[in-house]
Amino acid sequence: MGMHVFYNPEPNNVLPAGESHHATHVLRVAVGEKIKVIDGKGKVVTAEVTSVNAKGCEYNELDTQAIPSRPFRLHVAFGILKPSDRMEWFIEKATEIGIDEISPILCDHSERKNVNINRFEKVAIAAVKQSMQPYIPVINPLMTFKEFITSHIPGYIAHCSDGIRIPLKDFDQSLNAVTVLVGPEGDFSTNEIERALSAGWQPVSLGESRLRAETAAIVACHSIHLLKD
Amino acid sequence: MGMHVFYNPEPNNVLPAGESHHATHVLRVAVGEKIKVIDGKGKVVTAEVTSVNAKGCEYNELDTQAIPSRPFRLHVAFGILKPSDRMEWFIEKATEIGIDEISPILCDHSERKNVNINRFEKVAIAAVKQSMQPYIPVINPLMTFKEFITSHIPGYIAHCSDGIRIPLKDFDQSLNAVTVLVGPEGDFSTNEIERALSAGWQPVSLGESRLRAETAAIVACHSIHLLKD
Repeated sequence: MGMHVFYNPEPNNVLPAGESHHATHVLRVAVGEKIKVIDGKGKVVTAEVTSVNAKGCEYNELDTQAIPSRPFRLHVAFGILKPSDRMEWFIEKATEIGIDEISPILCDHSERKNVNINRFEKVAIAAVKQSMQPYIPVINPLMTFKEFITSHIPGYIAHCSDGIRIPLKDFDQSLNAVTVLVGPEGDFSTNEIERALSAGWQPVSLGESRLRAETAAIVACHSIHLLKD
Repeated sequence: MGMHVFYNPEPNNVLPAGESHHATHVLRVAVGEKIKVIDGKGKVVTAEVTSVNAKGCEYNELDTQAIPSRPFRLHVAFGILKPSDRMEWFIEKATEIGIDEISPILCDHSERKNVNINRFEKVAIAAVKQSMQPYIPVINPLMTFKEFITSHIPGYIAHCSDGIRIPLKDFDQSLNAVTVLVGPEGDFSTNEIERALSAGWQPVSLGESRLRAETAAIVACHSIHLLKD
């Protein structure tokens, strides 16, 4: 209880620059203090700070736990949204709940053309630290809907148009990797839906409620989680 | 598609002051225009604007649908949090997904002493309009944990302390009313947990992940929804 948590993806014993700065200048971590360090790849270290200097905050590992990964992989791809905070909110919440891969997708109805992946990664780092998630999600570079569809094994596409859709909760629970595509505000275009269906993606619905795009993304993430758990 | 949606809880044909102002001064709704009006009690009206004047925006009902309520009632009570935006976010998302009653609770570890219920109600109104949810949740006045426990039929308490807890997803699906209590940042105090257990509340866990308080509240809400759906 109370130990500060830091993120260091590298197999060395020095916190990266940003984390070192935060440790020494904001949290005023002192030599001898115990901290937790996670690498986002399943390693959770209890450590003791050994020096705080210009090179950064160095530490000795006292105890190391290797947390096995989940028995299934969850990948959510979402049509990018105009408000950045709603995308960041999705990334934060999905990271807390547990997600392996996140793909921002440029869709026909997306109201912006690019995203700040670096900012998304910072949100994911803050969330793994806050929730002590041993695994940090991979956040892929922005790609177009077409690029995504043609480069990934078909999964589920959650759209709101007419047509036969199974409830996502009836997904194939024997799968050990699930990918769900969720549209932007304004949904996928008819062309996108047709392209996905003919590439073998299965159309799903997320229930009766009309959800905002970022709510749909989190509901998709949590539905798979709850039922695979 | 494209019709503006307004909220009018009264059984008259004039939008309330705030909605009238928004209709006429922001959205520039004109006489003859078709709008949707929801009352938050299951009624969804397609209407035509008949006059726009100092009394407000008046309309004639063209078509009225009465949407039956869900076959179960879901009530989430949450320990109030320091950041208001995180509570408002929970209210927005829970309203989109569908919730009947929300109770902000003053807990031992709550880092604030009061909340703006009026603001919470505005968030819920915006969310029902946005998601066309036919029912708006009741938002109760702030009460203490003790007041809440002693005035409500026992349900589930999601805490993070040691002790036997069943997964919330194994809740009794034969219930037609479910109440879930979720703690503030820092969880319920030991006293609160003991008081709840001796009053008959059942301890539950929300899974392996360490969730922020508002994420826990939304996960609780969505878990019940998904499994009762």
